[in-house]
Amino acid sequence: MLSSPPPSGLLEKLFQYIDLHQDEFVQTLKEWVAIESVSVQPIPRLRQEVFRMMTLAADKLQHLGARVDSVDLGSQQMPDGQSLPIPPIILAELGNDPKKPTVCFYGHLDVQPAQKDDGWLTAPYMLTEVDGKLYGRGATDNKGPVLAWINAVSAFRALEQDLPVNIKFILEGMEEAGSVALEELVQREKDRFFSSVDYIVISDNLWVSQRKPALTYGTRGNSYFMVEVKCRDQDFHSGTFGGILNEPMADLVALLGSLVDSSGHILIPGIYDQMAPLTEEEKTLYENIDLDLEEYRKSSQVEKFLFDTKEELLAHLWRYPSLSIHGIEGAFDEPGIKTVIPGRVIGKFSIRLVPHMNLSVVENQVKQHLEAVFSKRNSSNKMTVSMVLGLHPWTANISDTQYLAAKRAIKTVFGVDPDMIQDGSTIPIAKLFQAITQKSVMMLPLGAVDDGEHSQNEKINRWNYIQGSKLFAAFFLELSKQHSQQLPSSVF
Amino acid sequence: MLSSPPPSGLLEKLFQYIDLHQDEFVQTLKEWVAIESVSVQPIPRLRQEVFRMMTLAADKLQHLGARVDSVDLGSQQMPDGQSLPIPPIILAELGNDPKKPTVCFYGHLDVQPAQKDDGWLTAPYMLTEVDGKLYGRGATDNKGPVLAWINAVSAFRALEQDLPVNIKFILEGMEEAGSVALEELVQREKDRFFSSVDYIVISDNLWVSQRKPALTYGTRGNSYFMVEVKCRDQDFHSGTFGGILNEPMADLVALLGSLVDSSGHILIPGIYDQMAPLTEEEKTLYENIDLDLEEYRKSSQVEKFLFDTKEELLAHLWRYPSLSIHGIEGAFDEPGIKTVIPGRVIGKFSIRLVPHMNLSVVENQVKQHLEAVFSKRNSSNKMTVSMVLGLHPWTANISDTQYLAAKRAIKTVFGVDPDMIQDGSTIPIAKLFQAITQKSVMMLPLGAVDDGEHSQNEKINRWNYIQGSKLFAAFFLELSKQHSQQLPSSVF
Repeated sequence: MLSSPPPSGLLEKLFQYIDLHQDEFVQTLKEWVAIESVSVQPIPRLRQEVFRMMTLAADKLQHLGARVDSVDLGSQQMPDGQSLPIPPIILAELGNDPKKPTVCFYGHLDVQPAQKDDGWLTAPYMLTEVDGKLYGRGATDNKGPVLAWINAVSAFRALEQDLPVNIKFILEGMEEAGSVALEELVQREKDRFFSSVDYIVISDNLWVSQRKPALTYGTRGNSYFMVEVKCRDQDFHSGTFGGILNEPMADLVALLGSLVDSSGHILIPGIYDQMAPLTEEEKTLYENIDLDLEEYRKSSQVEKFLFDTKEELLAHLWRYPSLSIHGIEGAFDEPGIKTVIPGRVIGKFSIRLVPHMNLSVVENQVKQHLEAVFSKRNSSNKMTVSMVLGLHPWTANISDTQYLAAKRAIKTVFGVDPDMIQDGSTIPIAKLFQAITQKSVMMLPLGAVDDGEHSQNEKINRWNYIQGSKLFAAFFLELSKQHSQQLPSSVF
Repeated sequence: MLSSPPPSGLLEKLFQYIDLHQDEFVQTLKEWVAIESVSVQPIPRLRQEVFRMMTLAADKLQHLGARVDSVDLGSQQMPDGQSLPIPPIILAELGNDPKKPTVCFYGHLDVQPAQKDDGWLTAPYMLTEVDGKLYGRGATDNKGPVLAWINAVSAFRALEQDLPVNIKFILEGMEEAGSVALEELVQREKDRFFSSVDYIVISDNLWVSQRKPALTYGTRGNSYFMVEVKCRDQDFHSGTFGGILNEPMADLVALLGSLVDSSGHILIPGIYDQMAPLTEEEKTLYENIDLDLEEYRKSSQVEKFLFDTKEELLAHLWRYPSLSIHGIEGAFDEPGIKTVIPGRVIGKFSIRLVPHMNLSVVENQVKQHLEAVFSKRNSSNKMTVSMVLGLHPWTANISDTQYLAAKRAIKTVFGVDPDMIQDGSTIPIAKLFQAITQKSVMMLPLGAVDDGEHSQNEKINRWNYIQGSKLFAAFFLELSKQHSQQLPSSVF
C-alpha cells in the first residue's frame, strides 16, 4: 500500500506560495544573518551569539510544529585555559508516519568571522540586496540553505498539506570550529534519533556553475603530514656555521622536493596503486559538467592550469590524489634579510585522498619514502615524520533513491539535469554520517560558484534561495514517490 | 732618525699601573654598560641613550687630551615615516708627531637590545662580576675593547710617558644598525682625517678559543639572494585547486634543492672557479689554531660536523664559500595545520664569499643556474631572482707591519703566539676601511669565544679586559719599533 498521492496541482500551489512569500523568506534570512554567530573565535560574546542563533532556530522549528530537542553538550576547554560552553545541537522531528520515508537535514548556523574593513562592500551582518544578490555573512554558508529547507516545510504547512515525508533536523553551531561534539552525538543517537532515518541530506557546498544546479556525490579525503628536520633547538649564524653543518633547511627542501614532480604527479612509490580506476561512466559525467574552462581560469587568476581539457581538470580535482606543500615552520619567514641557519624546521604538506586510498597505507608509504630519501643524504640531523590529520574520502552511490529523487526535483524546478559533481576539498561531515549511521547521504547544494563562502562579500542569489526552497518542496514529493516505488509491496 | 727608544722597564711600569687600577677600569666599563645605547630599535628614548653614550665617550677622550670632533650626521627617515637623529661619529686625535706612526682605532658604542626576561641571569645593563666574568650588554661588543684601548692610553698619560704613536679614534653609535652614515663619512674624510693614518685597528670580534689570543686577517663576504615564484598574489585552497596547478612551493623547493648537496658542496656551475686556491701556508696556519674540535662540537650542540679534522673544518668556515638556505616568505609558517597553496613565495638564501670571488660574477652564476633549473620544470609560474645584498670578502696581508707588532705584543703579554684566524661571517667595516682609505687594516680581538655577543648573558672576562689593556699598551710600543725599522733611514 502506498501513501495517498499528493493532490494534483500541489506542486504549482507550493511554488506559487513560495514566490508570493519570497520577501517574507528574505526577511527571515535577514534576521538570521543579523546574528553574529561566529564559532571559531573563543570570545564569550560571540559564543553567546551562537547560543542566541540556536534558540532562534529552535523556536522557528517549534513554530512549524516540530518536536525539538536542544542537546546540551557541556563546555570546551580552550588552549588558553578558558572554558567556553558548547552551543546545543538541535535534534528536531516533524512527523513519524511509518508509511513515509524519513529524511534528515543537516545544517549549521555558525559563520566565519567577518568585518566591514576586511573588504566588505556592505555591512556583513546586515543582509543587503544588490541586483538580486543577498550579501551577508552566512547567507550561503549555511543559513540560507537551512532556511530554504524550512521554507519548503512551511509552504506545506501554510497550504495545510500533509508532508509527504517525515522530516528530521540536525542543526549545529560549531561547524566552522570543527564540529566539536557532533561525532560523539551522532554516535550516541545512532540507534535512537537516526534509527528511523532513511536519508540524510546536507546542503553545505556550492555548484560549479553560476546558474546550473548540481548534486554532489563525493569529496576527497586528506592526510596532513609534518616532517621535522632537527640539528638543534637553537638557530645558527650562517657566518659562523655556514659550510660545516648538515643544514636542516637543505635536508628539508630535498625531502619536500622529492614528493611531487612539476606535472603534479606524486612521486611517492605505490601511492596511486590503491586508487579506484577512473571509469568510462565517470568520464562521461565529467563531459556533461557545465564548466567553461577559460572563464574558470580567468576567474581563478591563473596563467595556465596543468590540464587543457575539462575532463582532465575535473578528474585531477576530484578523482586523483594531489599533493600540496603548505609551508615551513621554524625557518626565517618574515620580509627582509636574516642570515640565519634554522636549527629545527618542520615542513608541512598534505595529500588529498580519493577512493579507495587507505589512510594508514598512505601514512606508511609517505614515511618509507621520506626515510629512503633522507637516508641517502647521510645527514647527521634527525628526521621525524608524522601524519597529524587523516580524513577519509567520501563517495555516494548516485543511483540511490534520494539521488534519483533530487535529480527529478531539479529537473522540475530548474528545467535541466544537474551537474553530478564531486568536491576536491574534504567535507568530513558527509563521511561522518555515512560511517556512523550507515544511511544514504547526499549533498544537495543551493549556492552558486561565486557565492564567496568564507570570503568577503559572501552572498546568496535571491533566485537560488527561492528556487532552492521550491527544490526542497519538490524533493519531498519526489522522494516519497521514489521511495515507495523502490520498496516491495509486501513490506506493508 | 728614529724616535727615542722608550725608557727601559716602561712596559713593566705600564702593566703594573694597569693591574693596580683594574677596579677603576672595571668601574668605567660599568658606567658605560649602564647606558642602554640600543641603535637597532627606532625608539626615541633609546636613540637618546646612544647620544648620551657618545657624549660620555667624547668627554672621556677630551679628558685624555685628545682633540675631539663629534660629527653631526643629520637624521634618518624610518620606514614608518618617523625621523630619528643619527648619533654623531666621534673623530678624535691624540698627538700628531710626524716622526711617529699614526694608528686609528675603530670601535662602536651602541649595543644589541637586551631584556632581563630574554633569559639573562643578571640585569643586562648592570655590569655584574661572577667568577671573574663581567656580565652585561656591550661588555665584549664593543664597549670593553674600546675602553681597553683608552685604558692603555691613560696608563701612558698617568705615568707621564710620551705616547710612542699618534692615536686617532673613530667611534660610532650605529654599528648594530648597519653603520648608517659611516661609509659616507670615511669617504669624506679619506684625504683629511685618514690622510695621516698608517694603520687602522678594529677590535670587534672574538678569539676562537677561551684562553688563546688571536689576530684576524680575513672575513668572508656575503651575497644574499631572493627567488620569488608567483602564480598569483592570493593563496589557493588545496582542496579546490590541489592537482591542477603548478604550485609555487613545488617550484621553489626544487629551486632551493638544486643549490647545495648534502655534503655542503655548492652545485651552482662555476662558483668555485674564482676562489683563490688554498695554499700550503694557510693549511699550516690552520694546524696551529687552538681549537679542540670535540669541545667545539659539544659547545655548539651539534651531533656531527661535515668534517672530521680541524684543518678541513676551518678551511670550510673561512676559506671556502658556503651556501645557506634561510627560509621562505609567503608560505604557511605558523604552528598547526593550514591547507593552503601559497600563491606567491620567496625563497631566501645566501652565499658567503671568499677571495677572489666577484659579486657580479656570482650574481650571474646564481641567476643562470636558477633560470636553467626553472626552465626545465616547464612551469607556468613566474620566477624572479634578485641579489639584495652584496658584501665583499676582506683579507689582509699578515706580514704587514702592524700584524708583526701585534704578534710580538701578544707574545709579550700572553706568552704565546696568537692564533692567526679568519672570520666566517661578514664584517663589512674592515673591507670598508681598506677599500676607501687603502690603509692597512687589522682586527685585534680581545673577547673569548664564549663571550656571547648579541646573545643573552654577554660578558667579557676581567682577565681579557685587563690583559687586553696591557696588550694595546705593548702594541703601541711594538708598532713604533716595527714601523721605524721598516722605513729606510733616508726618509728622515
